[in-house]
Amino acid sequence: MRWNLPTNKVPEAWFNVAPRLPEPLEPPLHPATREPVGPDDLAPLFPMALIGQEVSRDPWIDIPGEVLDVLRLWRPTPLVRARRLEEHLGTPARIYYKDESVSPAGSHKPNTAVPQAFYNRAEGTRRLATETGAGQWGSALAYACALFGLECKVYMVRASYEQKPYRRIMMEVWGGSVEPSPVDEPGHPGSLGSAISDAVRDAAGREDSHYSLGSVLNHVLLHQTVIGLEAKEQLAAAGEQLPDLVVGSCGGGSNLGGICLPFVPEEEVGLLAVEPSACPTLTAGAFNYDFGDTAGLTPLLPMYTLGHDFIPPSIHAGGLRYHGDAPIISNLVKAGRMKAVAYPQEKVFEAAVTFARTQGTIPAPETSHAIRAVIDEALGAKEEGVEKVILFSYSGHGLLDLGAYDDYLAGRLESV
Amino acid sequence: MRWNLPTNKVPEAWFNVAPRLPEPLEPPLHPATREPVGPDDLAPLFPMALIGQEVSRDPWIDIPGEVLDVLRLWRPTPLVRARRLEEHLGTPARIYYKDESVSPAGSHKPNTAVPQAFYNRAEGTRRLATETGAGQWGSALAYACALFGLECKVYMVRASYEQKPYRRIMMEVWGGSVEPSPVDEPGHPGSLGSAISDAVRDAAGREDSHYSLGSVLNHVLLHQTVIGLEAKEQLAAAGEQLPDLVVGSCGGGSNLGGICLPFVPEEEVGLLAVEPSACPTLTAGAFNYDFGDTAGLTPLLPMYTLGHDFIPPSIHAGGLRYHGDAPIISNLVKAGRMKAVAYPQEKVFEAAVTFARTQGTIPAPETSHAIRAVIDEALGAKEEGVEKVILFSYSGHGLLDLGAYDDYLAGRLESV
Repeated sequence: MRWNLPTNKVPEAWFNVAPRLPEPLEPPLHPATREPVGPDDLAPLFPMALIGQEVSRDPWIDIPGEVLDVLRLWRPTPLVRARRLEEHLGTPARIYYKDESVSPAGSHKPNTAVPQAFYNRAEGTRRLATETGAGQWGSALAYACALFGLECKVYMVRASYEQKPYRRIMMEVWGGSVEPSPVDEPGHPGSLGSAISDAVRDAAGREDSHYSLGSVLNHVLLHQTVIGLEAKEQLAAAGEQLPDLVVGSCGGGSNLGGICLPFVPEEEVGLLAVEPSACPTLTAGAFNYDFGDTAGLTPLLPMYTLGHDFIPPSIHAGGLRYHGDAPIISNLVKAGRMKAVAYPQEKVFEAAVTFARTQGTIPAPETSHAIRAVIDEALGAKEEGVEKVILFSYSGHGLLDLGAYDDYLAGRLESV
Repeated sequence: MRWNLPTNKVPEAWFNVAPRLPEPLEPPLHPATREPVGPDDLAPLFPMALIGQEVSRDPWIDIPGEVLDVLRLWRPTPLVRARRLEEHLGTPARIYYKDESVSPAGSHKPNTAVPQAFYNRAEGTRRLATETGAGQWGSALAYACALFGLECKVYMVRASYEQKPYRRIMMEVWGGSVEPSPVDEPGHPGSLGSAISDAVRDAAGREDSHYSLGSVLNHVLLHQTVIGLEAKEQLAAAGEQLPDLVVGSCGGGSNLGGICLPFVPEEEVGLLAVEPSACPTLTAGAFNYDFGDTAGLTPLLPMYTLGHDFIPPSIHAGGLRYHGDAPIISNLVKAGRMKAVAYPQEKVFEAAVTFARTQGTIPAPETSHAIRAVIDEALGAKEEGVEKVILFSYSGHGLLDLGAYDDYLAGRLESV
């Protein structure tokens, strides 16, 4: 059963969690001076509107009409009750998922790519530079740039560029230009951290260009709150009160923030981050100031981190291979408001195949982390014999990750 | 702007066009005797419920509740107004598309795979055998079989099996078993006609198995009428009267039938079939009795055909590489109730990229045939200065066809 809101019921404002956090957010620090960064420090990289959102204390921030017009191409996304999965598990839990895979790029990423492209164009930027790992974020930004007439340059982690041509082609179909990273070490497989360095260098060095980031920063998580805001209304339309637990997979934290942040003020709602054992930032990292990139070009952010030179094993969930976490997510975990759990990839793919054979759709490896945790929570509810409402973000489809499924089904998956 | 029907407004009956056709349908003939085939001839291959639907004259046929429960996982599909494409073209035409790409298998094919799996299981079949070209149909049937607990065996055209592993993996994720065809000529690239022969031989030779076909037959087109029925209601909700023109790409004819058949009784609605110049069945074929497969195992069907031994050039729109057309589609074209047009693949990909860069989503090569025709109709309306409402079926996404886009963007596309 699918619960659709009436036409046009896309939220008209983003929910800003900053004034509702358990502790105030600590500021980002300048990489050279270690003093808090100000708007002028960020102006070479971002438009003023986004810099303003980064530090805003307003509880709600209006979504511009031109952005809404684009979001309405695929939003509101469906809220689906996973009845077939429930039956298969024999659980008394009621499982709902918010299907972000229906966007043109196939994930939640366009929710922030679109406003970022909009604000940049509005302030006269002609070109955006960004990084991408497996390609989810790069394709979302290429899509958004196509709609707003901006040039788009994507630095793609070389290992993915060479092994996964489909996401590269997708970016090119939308008119984007893609280059393998690191640009100055042709033999190197690359990492997200080094691709960020390439993109920041590019944008900082060109008058016509800005930089765009697909996760981690406050304004990115802000834009993703449409997910949780819609889910709240849709759950009510489905006759549910608040969920007992909200679950999301966590790389940089934008998908997780999108589904969870609107529930932060409701203390009775549990929040759960799910990450790979191969990159266990929240479950095994330290809370510290650290750089967002490998080269140390970005401001220092207060976050759980494995160190900015940490290179995670090459698991299939490329979007979760980031050494740190969004400051907002880190703040919630540090304060105990959000819990975190980590899974090895074999358990994750086992859950993904169970989902595909019951609910039907094939989830992204990143999304399958959340599914693994949801299945375990639902089995726990069965053991305890308690009804429980679980909501999770189905952040993306796995149609460009079928090679990973092939490895899993053939028993070739690396145990990490 | 998207027009969603309220929750649950999936049609509860299929529309049977048979009693509304301009001329009565001629019967299929037995391949040996050339006499009309009866139910007993078909019983080794199909369940009685589907044989009954194949010859039914009832104007409406109820959709079983268990089938509706599955269709509701992704239906009603969105009806989208292609405003950005309209603006790009500067046309006074209003263009709407029915987005069938949101199904788990990514196309309209599950609309018939699900009821076929249901009726087979209801009559005790334990296993289904079928053929697939590029894999759209095979993946839809594997999906449906997973939901109803049936084994699924897919004979996949060898050229696709070897060059396009993603659809094969998709079928395996859903538990299907895939074998390259022709099974008895390991070096041969295969064709849809020969894969049908393999699947029919398999099903006819096993007690526990039936055969399943993804297009051409009357009951398949019947199941697809949910597309046009929903579109009719959604257009009304959008404040439109009847469309002036309904457009669909045509391989065997099930997608085209799905969007068009519910409009057949409305004489003022134009119907347009779009096919590849490389396989121009409706625009250059002859209306004749011909076999559905290469080996001549199937009944003879009254249809436009290029001859059952015709092997079309290997264009990227694998789903349109069939030598014949559904008898219902052939009937409509022969009577002049439906028009047909053919395009070369380069013009088709040009339209596909225009669509991707304006509307955002990346269409399947098959679907892009319809888009090409819609763009040309909309430009015609601009030239004439007439408002016009055009409806088309966005039959599938192109996410597993990105290699074809790569060829197009790099200028490597074959001119056929």
